[in-house]
Amino acid sequence: MPETLLTSRTTLGRHPERGAHERETINQILDEGFVCHVGFVSDGQPYVIPTGYARVGDELYIHGSAASRMLRNLEKGIEMCVTVTLLDGLVMARAAFSHSMNYRSVLVLGTASLVEDAEEKMAALRAITEHIVPGRWAETRWPTPQELKATSVLKLPLAEASAKIRTGGPKDKEEDLTFPVWAGVLPFSLVPGKPVEHEASAVHEVPEYVARYSRNAGK
Amino acid sequence: MPETLLTSRTTLGRHPERGAHERETINQILDEGFVCHVGFVSDGQPYVIPTGYARVGDELYIHGSAASRMLRNLEKGIEMCVTVTLLDGLVMARAAFSHSMNYRSVLVLGTASLVEDAEEKMAALRAITEHIVPGRWAETRWPTPQELKATSVLKLPLAEASAKIRTGGPKDKEEDLTFPVWAGVLPFSLVPGKPVEHEASAVHEVPEYVARYSRNAGK
Repeated sequence: MPETLLTSRTTLGRHPERGAHERETINQILDEGFVCHVGFVSDGQPYVIPTGYARVGDELYIHGSAASRMLRNLEKGIEMCVTVTLLDGLVMARAAFSHSMNYRSVLVLGTASLVEDAEEKMAALRAITEHIVPGRWAETRWPTPQELKATSVLKLPLAEASAKIRTGGPKDKEEDLTFPVWAGVLPFSLVPGKPVEHEASAVHEVPEYVARYSRNAGK
Repeated sequence: MPETLLTSRTTLGRHPERGAHERETINQILDEGFVCHVGFVSDGQPYVIPTGYARVGDELYIHGSAASRMLRNLEKGIEMCVTVTLLDGLVMARAAFSHSMNYRSVLVLGTASLVEDAEEKMAALRAITEHIVPGRWAETRWPTPQELKATSVLKLPLAEASAKIRTGGPKDKEEDLTFPVWAGVLPFSLVPGKPVEHEASAVHEVPEYVARYSRNAGK
Protein backbone atom coordinates (compact mmCIF):
# COMPACT_ATOMS: atom_id res chain seq x y z
CA MET A 1 0.00 0.00 0.00
CA PRO A 2 1.44 3.41 -0.86
CA GLU A 3 2.31 5.73 2.02
CA THR A 4 -0.52 8.16 2.68
CA LEU A 5 -0.68 11.53 4.39
CA LEU A 6 -4.32 11.23 5.38
CA THR A 7 -5.82 12.64 8.57
CA SER A 8 -9.38 13.55 9.48
CA ARG A 9 -8.51 17.17 8.59
CA THR A 10 -7.37 16.30 5.08
CA THR A 11 -10.24 13.96 4.24
CA LEU A 12 -12.50 15.29 1.49
CA GLY A 13 -16.13 15.56 2.44
CA ARG A 14 -17.29 16.55 -1.04
CA HIS A 15 -16.18 14.75 -4.21
CA PRO A 16 -14.11 12.09 -2.41
CA GLU A 17 -13.34 10.62 -5.86
CA ARG A 18 -11.15 13.68 -6.50
CA GLY A 19 -9.01 13.10 -3.41
CA ALA A 20 -5.58 11.51 -3.20
CA HIS A 21 -3.26 11.11 -0.26
CA GLU A 22 -0.35 9.14 -1.72
CA ARG A 23 2.96 10.85 -1.23
CA GLU A 24 3.93 10.29 -4.86
CA THR A 25 0.84 12.07 -6.23
CA ILE A 26 1.32 14.94 -3.79
CA ASN A 27 5.01 15.24 -4.66
CA GLN A 28 4.31 15.34 -8.41
CA ILE A 29 1.96 18.29 -8.02
CA LEU A 30 4.30 20.12 -5.64
CA ASP A 31 7.19 19.57 -8.05
CA GLU A 32 5.34 20.86 -11.12
CA GLY A 33 4.15 24.04 -9.37
CA PHE A 34 6.39 26.73 -7.97
CA VAL A 35 3.97 29.29 -6.51
CA CYS A 36 2.09 28.38 -3.35
CA HIS A 37 -0.50 30.27 -1.31
CA VAL A 38 0.37 30.36 2.37
CA GLY A 39 -2.43 30.74 4.90
CA PHE A 40 -1.84 31.86 8.49
CA VAL A 41 -3.68 33.77 11.18
CA SER A 42 -2.54 37.04 12.72
CA ASP A 43 -4.69 38.82 15.33
CA GLY A 44 -7.59 36.53 14.45
CA GLN A 45 -7.48 37.47 10.78
CA PRO A 46 -6.52 34.85 8.19
CA TYR A 47 -4.08 35.99 5.49
CA VAL A 48 -3.27 34.23 2.22
CA ILE A 49 0.05 35.22 0.64
CA PRO A 50 1.57 33.88 -2.61
CA THR A 51 5.23 32.87 -2.55
CA GLY A 52 7.77 30.51 -4.13
CA TYR A 53 8.77 27.21 -2.56
CA ALA A 54 10.66 23.98 -3.04
CA ARG A 55 10.16 20.44 -1.85
CA VAL A 56 13.20 18.54 -0.58
CA GLY A 57 12.32 14.99 0.41
CA ASP A 58 9.52 15.20 2.95
CA GLU A 59 9.94 18.92 3.68
CA LEU A 60 8.60 22.02 2.01
CA TYR A 61 10.84 25.09 2.15
CA ILE A 62 9.68 28.69 1.81
CA HIS A 63 11.72 31.82 2.28
CA GLY A 64 11.36 35.55 2.51
CA SER A 65 12.71 38.67 4.07
CA ALA A 66 13.46 38.19 7.76
CA ALA A 67 11.48 41.43 8.23
CA SER A 68 8.28 40.27 6.48
CA ARG A 69 5.07 39.95 8.49
CA MET A 70 4.42 36.49 7.10
CA LEU A 71 7.84 35.12 8.02
CA ARG A 72 7.84 36.73 11.46
CA ASN A 73 4.45 35.15 12.17
CA LEU A 74 5.20 31.72 10.78
CA GLU A 75 8.58 31.32 12.45
CA LYS A 76 6.78 31.27 15.81
CA GLY A 77 5.50 27.84 14.82
CA ILE A 78 1.85 28.78 14.36
CA GLU A 79 -0.62 26.65 12.39
CA MET A 80 -0.35 27.19 8.67
CA CYS A 81 -1.74 25.87 5.40
CA VAL A 82 0.16 25.78 2.12
CA THR A 83 -1.87 25.27 -1.04
CA VAL A 84 -0.50 24.70 -4.54
CA THR A 85 -2.95 24.82 -7.44
CA LEU A 86 -2.30 23.88 -11.07
CA LEU A 87 -5.09 24.94 -13.41
CA ASP A 88 -5.55 22.47 -16.27
CA GLY A 89 -8.73 23.59 -17.99
CA LEU A 90 -12.24 24.99 -18.04
CA VAL A 91 -14.95 22.36 -18.17
CA MET A 92 -18.01 23.46 -20.13
CA ALA A 93 -21.06 21.35 -19.47
CA ARG A 94 -24.61 21.72 -20.83
CA ALA A 95 -26.01 22.74 -17.45
CA ALA A 96 -24.59 25.92 -15.93
CA PHE A 97 -24.68 23.98 -12.65
CA SER A 98 -22.30 21.31 -14.00
CA HIS A 99 -19.57 23.68 -15.19
CA SER A 100 -16.27 23.03 -13.49
CA MET A 101 -12.51 23.36 -13.78
CA ASN A 102 -9.86 20.73 -14.25
CA TYR A 103 -7.09 21.23 -11.74
CA ARG A 104 -4.60 19.52 -9.49
CA SER A 105 -4.11 20.99 -6.05
CA VAL A 106 -2.28 20.08 -2.86
CA LEU A 107 -3.06 21.31 0.63
CA VAL A 108 -0.47 20.90 3.38
CA LEU A 109 -1.28 21.55 7.04
CA GLY A 110 1.19 21.94 9.88
CA THR A 111 3.58 24.23 11.64
CA ALA A 112 6.87 25.42 10.23
CA SER A 113 10.21 25.77 11.91
CA LEU A 114 12.92 28.33 11.25
CA VAL A 115 16.01 26.92 9.55
CA GLU A 116 18.89 28.21 11.65
CA ASP A 117 21.75 26.01 10.52
CA ALA A 118 23.75 28.00 7.92
CA GLU A 119 24.47 24.97 5.76
CA GLU A 120 20.85 23.81 5.68
CA LYS A 121 19.73 27.39 4.98
CA MET A 122 22.07 27.69 2.00
CA ALA A 123 20.92 24.27 0.73
CA ALA A 124 17.28 25.35 1.03
CA LEU A 125 17.89 28.58 -0.92
CA ARG A 126 19.70 26.56 -3.56
CA ALA A 127 16.73 24.15 -3.67
CA ILE A 128 14.21 26.98 -4.07
CA THR A 129 16.24 28.62 -6.86
CA GLU A 130 16.75 25.29 -8.62
CA HIS A 131 13.11 24.31 -8.21
CA ILE A 132 11.92 27.51 -9.87
CA VAL A 133 14.63 27.71 -12.56
CA PRO A 134 16.52 24.41 -12.80
CA GLY A 135 20.14 25.12 -13.74
CA ARG A 136 20.21 28.65 -12.38
CA TRP A 137 21.94 28.36 -9.00
CA ALA A 138 25.41 27.37 -10.25
CA GLU A 139 25.62 30.47 -12.46
CA THR A 140 24.48 33.06 -9.92
CA ARG A 141 26.37 35.09 -7.38
CA TRP A 142 25.71 33.15 -4.16
CA PRO A 143 24.35 34.73 -0.97
CA THR A 144 26.76 36.53 1.33
CA PRO A 145 26.57 36.01 5.11
CA GLN A 146 24.77 39.39 5.29
CA GLU A 147 22.19 38.33 2.68
CA LEU A 148 21.70 35.01 4.46
CA LYS A 149 21.00 36.92 7.67
CA ALA A 150 18.42 39.11 5.92
CA THR A 151 16.58 36.02 4.64
CA SER A 152 14.41 33.71 6.71
CA VAL A 153 13.92 30.14 5.58
CA LEU A 154 11.13 28.00 6.99
CA LYS A 155 10.52 24.29 6.62
CA LEU A 156 7.16 22.62 6.86
CA PRO A 157 7.05 18.82 7.16
CA LEU A 158 4.95 17.08 4.51
CA ALA A 159 3.20 15.00 7.14
CA GLU A 160 -0.46 16.02 6.81
CA ALA A 161 -1.48 16.70 3.25
CA SER A 162 -3.99 15.91 0.55
CA ALA A 163 -4.24 16.29 -3.20
CA LYS A 164 -7.42 17.09 -5.07
CA ILE A 165 -7.60 16.36 -8.76
CA ARG A 166 -10.29 16.84 -11.38
CA THR A 167 -9.69 15.60 -14.90
CA GLY A 168 -11.79 14.78 -17.93
CA GLY A 169 -14.86 16.17 -19.59
CA PRO A 170 -18.15 17.56 -18.31
CA LYS A 171 -20.35 15.33 -16.16
CA ASP A 172 -23.88 16.38 -17.07
CA LYS A 173 -26.97 14.52 -16.06
CA GLU A 174 -28.18 12.04 -18.67
CA GLU A 175 -31.22 14.17 -19.56
CA ASP A 176 -29.01 17.21 -20.31
CA LEU A 177 -26.74 15.48 -22.83
CA THR A 178 -28.86 16.45 -25.85
CA PHE A 179 -29.09 20.12 -24.82
CA PRO A 180 -28.01 22.10 -27.92
CA VAL A 181 -24.75 23.65 -26.72
CA TRP A 182 -21.09 22.86 -27.35
CA ALA A 183 -19.70 20.84 -24.45
CA GLY A 184 -16.09 20.10 -23.73
CA VAL A 185 -12.89 21.29 -22.12
CA LEU A 186 -10.70 24.28 -22.87
CA PRO A 187 -7.26 23.20 -21.63
CA PHE A 188 -4.95 25.76 -20.01
CA SER A 189 -1.27 25.86 -19.35
CA LEU A 190 1.23 28.30 -17.95
CA VAL A 191 3.46 29.02 -20.93
CA PRO A 192 6.83 30.83 -20.96
CA GLY A 193 7.19 33.66 -23.46
CA LYS A 194 10.26 35.15 -25.14
CA PRO A 195 13.03 35.92 -22.61
CA VAL A 196 13.59 39.66 -22.05
CA GLU A 197 17.27 40.44 -21.49
CA HIS A 198 18.07 43.06 -18.87
CA GLU A 199 19.62 46.17 -20.43
CA ALA A 200 22.82 45.75 -18.43
CA SER A 201 23.19 41.97 -18.79
CA ALA A 202 26.89 41.04 -18.99
CA VAL A 203 25.98 37.92 -20.98
CA HIS A 204 23.83 38.07 -24.11
CA GLU A 205 23.36 34.42 -24.91
CA VAL A 206 20.11 33.15 -23.37
CA PRO A 207 20.95 30.01 -21.34
CA GLU A 208 19.40 26.71 -22.45
CA TYR A 209 17.53 26.40 -19.14
CA VAL A 210 15.78 29.70 -19.89
CA ALA A 211 15.26 29.22 -23.63
CA ARG A 212 13.79 25.72 -23.11
CA TYR A 213 12.07 26.36 -19.79
CA SER A 214 9.29 23.90 -19.03
CA ARG A 215 7.52 22.89 -15.83
CA ASN A 216 6.99 19.32 -16.91
CA ALA A 217 10.14 18.45 -18.80
CA GLY A 218 10.37 15.14 -16.98
CA LYS A 219 6.92 13.98 -18.05
CA MET B 1 -7.65 61.48 -5.39
CA PRO B 2 -8.70 57.95 -6.41
CA GLU B 3 -10.78 55.96 -3.95
CA THR B 4 -8.56 53.68 -1.88
CA LEU B 5 -9.24 50.52 0.11
CA LEU B 6 -6.38 51.03 2.52
CA THR B 7 -6.45 50.03 6.19
CA SER B 8 -3.64 49.30 8.63
CA ARG B 9 -4.15 45.60 7.88
CA THR B 10 -3.64 46.03 4.14
CA THR B 11 -0.63 48.35 4.35
CA LEU B 12 2.54 46.77 3.03
CA GLY B 13 5.42 46.73 5.47
CA ARG B 14 7.93 45.37 2.96
CA HIS B 15 8.36 46.78 -0.58
CA PRO B 16 5.76 49.56 -0.16
CA GLU B 17 6.58 50.59 -3.76
CA ARG B 18 4.80 47.43 -4.91
CA GLY B 19 1.58 48.30 -3.12
CA ALA B 20 -1.57 49.80 -4.58
CA HIS B 21 -4.92 50.48 -2.98
CA GLU B 22 -6.85 52.20 -5.77
CA ARG B 23 -10.10 50.47 -6.57
CA GLU B 24 -9.39 50.58 -10.31
CA THR B 25 -6.07 48.74 -10.00
CA ILE B 26 -7.62 46.16 -7.69
CA ASN B 27 -10.59 45.66 -10.03
CA GLN B 28 -8.34 45.16 -13.07
CA ILE B 29 -6.46 42.33 -11.36
CA LEU B 30 -9.67 40.73 -10.05
CA ASP B 31 -11.21 40.93 -13.51
CA GLU B 32 -8.25 39.35 -15.31
CA GLY B 33 -8.00 36.43 -12.89
CA PHE B 34 -10.71 33.85 -12.27
CA VAL B 35 -9.23 31.53 -9.64
CA CYS B 36 -8.85 32.84 -6.10
CA HIS B 37 -7.45 31.25 -2.96
CA VAL B 38 -9.82 31.57 -0.03
CA GLY B 39 -8.39 31.56 3.50
CA PHE B 40 -10.48 30.83 6.59
CA VAL B 41 -10.04 29.29 10.01
CA SER B 42 -11.81 26.18 11.27
CA ASP B 43 -11.04 24.77 14.74
CA GLY B 44 -7.99 27.02 14.93
CA GLN B 45 -6.53 25.65 11.70
CA PRO B 46 -6.21 27.95 8.67
CA TYR B 47 -7.29 26.45 5.35
CA VAL B 48 -6.58 27.79 1.86
CA ILE B 49 -8.91 26.55 -0.88
CA PRO B 50 -8.86 27.46 -4.59
CA THR B 51 -12.17 28.38 -6.22
CA GLY B 52 -13.70 30.49 -9.00
CA TYR B 53 -15.19 33.92 -8.40
CA ALA B 54 -16.62 37.03 -10.03
CA ARG B 55 -16.58 40.70 -9.15
CA VAL B 56 -19.82 42.64 -9.52
CA GLY B 57 -19.36 46.30 -8.66
CA ASP B 58 -17.92 46.45 -5.16
CA GLU B 59 -18.73 42.84 -4.25
CA LEU B 60 -16.88 39.60 -4.83
CA TYR B 61 -19.05 36.51 -5.31
CA ILE B 62 -17.93 32.94 -4.70
CA HIS B 63 -20.06 29.81 -4.80
CA GLY B 64 -19.94 26.14 -4.04
CA SER B 65 -21.92 23.19 -2.86
CA ALA B 66 -24.15 24.07 0.06
CA ALA B 67 -22.66 20.96 1.69
CA SER B 68 -19.01 21.99 1.39
CA ARG B 69 -16.95 22.63 4.52
CA MET B 70 -15.67 25.92 3.18
CA LEU B 71 -19.11 27.30 2.37
CA ARG B 72 -20.64 26.08 5.63
CA ASN B 73 -17.85 27.82 7.55
CA LEU B 74 -17.83 31.06 5.60
CA GLU B 75 -21.59 31.56 5.59
CA LYS B 76 -21.40 32.02 9.36
CA GLY B 77 -19.74 35.36 8.64
CA ILE B 78 -16.26 34.44 9.91
CA GLU B 79 -13.14 36.41 8.98
CA MET B 80 -11.80 35.45 5.58
CA CYS B 81 -9.10 36.42 3.10
CA VAL B 82 -9.40 36.09 -0.66
CA THR B 83 -6.19 36.28 -2.67
CA VAL B 84 -5.91 36.42 -6.47
CA THR B 85 -2.45 36.03 -8.00
CA LEU B 86 -1.47 36.54 -11.64
CA LEU B 87 2.03 35.29 -12.41
CA ASP B 88 3.74 37.45 -15.05
CA GLY B 89 7.32 36.21 -15.09
CA LEU B 90 10.46 34.91 -13.47
CA VAL B 91 13.04 37.58 -12.72
CA MET B 92 16.63 36.34 -13.03
CA ALA B 93 19.15 38.59 -11.36
CA ARG B 94 22.92 38.17 -11.01
CA ALA B 95 22.69 37.58 -7.27
CA ALA B 96 20.68 34.54 -6.17
CA PHE B 97 19.40 36.84 -3.40
CA SER B 98 17.90 39.28 -5.94
CA HIS B 99 15.89 36.73 -7.91
CA SER B 100 12.19 37.47 -7.89
CA MET B 101 8.92 37.01 -9.72
CA ASN B 102 6.80 39.51 -11.60
CA TYR B 103 3.22 39.21 -10.47
CA ARG B 104 0.04 41.11 -9.71
CA SER B 105 -1.91 40.04 -6.67
CA VAL B 106 -4.91 41.25 -4.73
CA LEU B 107 -5.73 40.44 -1.12
CA VAL B 108 -9.25 41.10 0.17
CA LEU B 109 -10.11 40.88 3.87
CA GLY B 110 -13.56 40.77 5.42
CA THR B 111 -16.54 38.62 6.22
CA ALA B 112 -18.94 37.19 3.66
CA SER B 113 -22.68 36.94 3.77
CA LEU B 114 -24.91 34.27 2.31
CA VAL B 115 -26.93 35.40 -0.70
CA GLU B 116 -30.48 34.28 0.08
CA ASP B 117 -32.51 36.27 -2.43
CA ALA B 118 -33.23 33.95 -5.37
CA GLU B 119 -32.87 36.70 -7.98
CA GLU B 120 -29.53 37.91 -6.62
CA LYS B 121 -28.35 34.32 -6.35
CA MET B 122 -29.17 33.62 -10.00
CA ALA B 123 -27.52 36.91 -11.03
CA ALA B 124 -24.38 35.96 -9.06
CA LEU B 125 -24.19 32.52 -10.72
CA ARG B 126 -24.62 34.19 -14.08
CA ALA B 127 -21.82 36.64 -13.18
CA ILE B 128 -19.46 33.84 -12.12
CA THR B 129 -20.13 31.83 -15.31
CA GLU B 130 -19.75 34.94 -17.49
CA HIS B 131 -16.60 36.05 -15.66
CA ILE B 132 -14.90 32.71 -16.27
CA VAL B 133 -16.21 32.15 -19.83
CA PRO B 134 -17.73 35.36 -21.24
CA GLY B 135 -20.59 34.45 -23.56
CA ARG B 136 -21.34 31.09 -21.97
CA TRP B 137 -24.36 31.72 -19.72
CA ALA B 138 -26.91 32.47 -22.44
CA GLU B 139 -26.22 29.13 -24.15
CA THR B 140 -26.36 26.88 -21.11
CA ARG B 141 -29.22 25.09 -19.40
CA TRP B 142 -29.94 27.40 -16.45
CA PRO B 143 -30.13 26.24 -12.84
CA THR B 144 -33.35 24.65 -11.61
CA PRO B 145 -34.79 25.59 -8.20
CA GLN B 146 -33.34 22.31 -6.88
CA GLU B 147 -29.86 23.13 -8.23
CA LEU B 148 -30.10 26.64 -6.80
CA LYS B 149 -30.89 25.12 -3.42
CA ALA B 150 -27.86 22.83 -3.61
CA THR B 151 -25.58 25.79 -4.32
CA SER B 152 -24.45 28.37 -1.79
CA VAL B 153 -23.42 31.81 -2.99
CA LEU B 154 -21.46 34.16 -0.77
CA LYS B 155 -20.66 37.81 -1.26
CA LEU B 156 -17.68 39.58 0.21
CA PRO B 157 -17.60 43.39 0.08
CA LEU B 158 -14.51 44.88 -1.59
CA ALA B 159 -14.01 47.27 1.29
CA GLU B 160 -10.61 46.34 2.68
CA ALA B 161 -8.17 45.28 0.01
CA SER B 162 -4.72 45.82 -1.41
CA ALA B 163 -2.89 45.03 -4.62
CA LYS B 164 0.75 44.09 -4.82
CA ILE B 165 2.52 44.40 -8.14
CA ARG B 166 6.06 43.70 -9.27
CA THR B 167 7.07 44.52 -12.83
CA GLY B 168 10.27 45.06 -14.74
CA GLY B 169 13.73 43.57 -14.72
CA PRO B 170 16.09 42.41 -12.00
CA LYS B 171 17.22 44.92 -9.40
CA ASP B 172 20.76 43.88 -8.55
CA LYS B 173 23.17 45.90 -6.51
CA GLU B 174 25.45 48.11 -8.61
CA GLU B 175 28.51 45.97 -7.88
CA ASP B 176 26.77 42.81 -9.15
CA LEU B 177 25.85 44.18 -12.58
CA THR B 178 29.04 42.94 -14.26
CA PHE B 179 28.71 39.42 -12.83
CA PRO B 180 29.02 37.08 -15.84
CA VAL B 181 25.53 35.59 -16.00
CA TRP B 182 22.53 36.21 -18.24
CA ALA B 183 20.07 38.50 -16.47
CA GLY B 184 16.51 39.24 -17.46
CA VAL B 185 12.91 38.14 -17.27
CA LEU B 186 11.18 35.03 -18.55
CA PRO B 187 7.56 36.14 -19.04
CA PHE B 188 4.73 33.74 -18.30
CA SER B 189 1.12 33.61 -19.27
CA LEU B 190 -1.81 31.29 -18.82
CA VAL B 191 -2.57 30.17 -22.36
CA PRO B 192 -5.63 28.29 -23.63
CA GLY B 193 -4.95 25.18 -25.72
CA LYS B 194 -7.04 23.44 -28.37
CA PRO B 195 -10.65 22.89 -27.22
CA VAL B 196 -11.47 19.23 -26.55
CA GLU B 197 -15.05 18.41 -27.52
CA HIS B 198 -16.98 16.09 -25.24
CA GLU B 199 -17.77 12.78 -26.93
CA ALA B 200 -21.52 13.35 -26.57
CA SER B 201 -21.60 17.05 -27.50
CA ALA B 202 -24.81 17.85 -29.36
CA VAL B 203 -23.07 20.76 -31.11
CA HIS B 204 -19.79 20.31 -32.97
CA GLU B 205 -18.93 23.87 -33.89
CA VAL B 206 -16.64 25.39 -31.27
CA PRO B 207 -18.18 28.70 -30.16
CA GLU B 208 -16.22 31.90 -30.84
CA TYR B 209 -15.97 32.63 -27.13
CA VAL B 210 -14.15 29.31 -26.66
CA ALA B 211 -12.05 29.39 -29.84
CA ARG B 212 -10.85 32.96 -29.14
CA TYR B 213 -10.76 32.74 -25.36
CA SER B 214 -8.52 35.35 -23.76
CA ARG B 215 -8.26 36.75 -20.24
CA ASN B 216 -7.24 40.19 -21.40
CA ALA B 217 -9.24 40.75 -24.55
CA GLY B 218 -10.18 44.23 -23.39
CA LYS B 219 -6.58 45.35 -22.99
